[in-house]
Amino acid sequence: MLAISQYREAIIDYLHEKIKVQEPANLYEPMVYILEQGGKRLRPVLVLMATEIFDCDYRKALDAALAIEIFHNFSLVHDDIMDDAPIRRGKETVHEKWDINTGILSGDAMLINAYQLFESYEGEMFKELSKLFTKTAIQVCEGQQYDIDFETRDDVSIEDYLLMIEYKTAVLVGASLQMGAIVAETSPACKDAIYQYGRLLGIAFQLQDDYLDAFGDPETFGKQPGGDIIENKKTFLYLKTLELASPGEARQLEHLYSISPLDNSGKIEAVKALFESSGAAELTRKEIENYTDKAFEILDKIELAEDRKEPLRSFGQMLMERQV
Amino acid sequence: MLAISQYREAIIDYLHEKIKVQEPANLYEPMVYILEQGGKRLRPVLVLMATEIFDCDYRKALDAALAIEIFHNFSLVHDDIMDDAPIRRGKETVHEKWDINTGILSGDAMLINAYQLFESYEGEMFKELSKLFTKTAIQVCEGQQYDIDFETRDDVSIEDYLLMIEYKTAVLVGASLQMGAIVAETSPACKDAIYQYGRLLGIAFQLQDDYLDAFGDPETFGKQPGGDIIENKKTFLYLKTLELASPGEARQLEHLYSISPLDNSGKIEAVKALFESSGAAELTRKEIENYTDKAFEILDKIELAEDRKEPLRSFGQMLMERQV
Repeated sequence: MLAISQYREAIIDYLHEKIKVQEPANLYEPMVYILEQGGKRLRPVLVLMATEIFDCDYRKALDAALAIEIFHNFSLVHDDIMDDAPIRRGKETVHEKWDINTGILSGDAMLINAYQLFESYEGEMFKELSKLFTKTAIQVCEGQQYDIDFETRDDVSIEDYLLMIEYKTAVLVGASLQMGAIVAETSPACKDAIYQYGRLLGIAFQLQDDYLDAFGDPETFGKQPGGDIIENKKTFLYLKTLELASPGEARQLEHLYSISPLDNSGKIEAVKALFESSGAAELTRKEIENYTDKAFEILDKIELAEDRKEPLRSFGQMLMERQV
Repeated sequence: MLAISQYREAIIDYLHEKIKVQEPANLYEPMVYILEQGGKRLRPVLVLMATEIFDCDYRKALDAALAIEIFHNFSLVHDDIMDDAPIRRGKETVHEKWDINTGILSGDAMLINAYQLFESYEGEMFKELSKLFTKTAIQVCEGQQYDIDFETRDDVSIEDYLLMIEYKTAVLVGASLQMGAIVAETSPACKDAIYQYGRLLGIAFQLQDDYLDAFGDPETFGKQPGGDIIENKKTFLYLKTLELASPGEARQLEHLYSISPLDNSGKIEAVKALFESSGAAELTRKEIENYTDKAFEILDKIELAEDRKEPLRSFGQMLMERQV
């Protein structure tokens, strides 16, 4: 087994080899631009890792891993247009550097390109990978649609929210791991279990991301906290607070989510106080722990030698260890 | 063999059966909206026709035909955003009826949905269909990019233009026919020949469309002629005129393509006069004939009984018979 940094290097090398600007350059330059930008490459690393865990050379999974990375970046390009986001990973977004039309069309080409990468797999493996990819990609679109819908809906339930983050974020983590299992031709039970491990860990990770957006330390979290509160985003913390708070506190929270003051610091502090006083913050921490525990339980049960599972466990622990 | 109208009905019935609004409705309603709008359904009809020509039940090809139709409509949704088009088939475009974000995301879901329809095919047939679809879809994106690039380029050659219409329009016609051949499990030679028939016919059709946009009878052509001239579109007619005209005439044409008068009728007539006097109009008619003849020659050579090929020949003739 390689270290995470080595898998990452392998992916980056393969990306350089496979993804080059060709004609028409205006279609392919934005693709190379966003793919070269970096990012953590978590998803493709998981594909390669899962492949080796099930005793198969990770190099066999490079095409599937790259497909996942291209798909992830396709979704960023189109989401950034929808969110009108000017900056991604410290650089101009594609539609900002070029224009919206370029973002749409290059994104489309990336999605198709991702499918093309599976063509190096033969027979049933090709179909299994393509089917999993398609199912996941549709869920990601549905998750994005739910996320958009929630902005204007005032009847979002906790279940709605959990389904949204599952589709928008977690299923791609599960699919990444399962792709490794498919390439390694492991058993259906293992394929299913590793998918569930990724899916549950993905939900835990997204809940934690929401939590840290409110309560994270700006030093370690990497971005200024409070962004979701400023944008009145109906996160788990918000929905749970509405559920747990007294009618008076709930009204107060809804009021805070209806205003957009020039200086947001007072609003952020007031909202966070309600998140805490209602017990929602505590409950969110518990929920993150629950999902993480469930993920590790599933990992425990996979029929595989302990030392084989170790890298996956470390990866999950690393992911969930970011401090509040 | 069924009549064209019967294949069309079969496609529409199958579409109603397979494509329904589901949750999240905001993702699927635009999809159903554009697919229910009608259109000529030429491409899926070609898939079904080709399947039967090679002696296979057309019903086996319904999923492939629907995939092609969904892909075609996906490209319309995204192209209409890029072209800022308010109306399509006499109705509001998706981004106009909803918004740009809905157009982007529903389009993405349609592209993925098209891929999903191939999953009903087993083994190598699944892979052959998916690969052809991917290759074609990438070319369609490239064609769209060339089309956008040409708007601001002043060095577009006739070859560039022909490649653009081949990618943007013709390859999908070829792919539609080849999908039928794949489903019918015919020989590689037949698969190739029927693709070439569609590709050449597609180029001829697009050249004719450009020609009719200038010289068509508004009664029979269905839209007000002169649209390309108003938009200063570098069509075959325009590029050929620049090539054939005297330096003075060429300058005149370039000048006409640099102005946007409030009343376009004078500009349209002047441009058309140059298309005629330069000999470009005549040459375009010849080029359309050449591509059509080449298409029929290839059809003649396909190893298949004459009566089997008849429907494809009639279809091609019908397509090219629209009067000037």
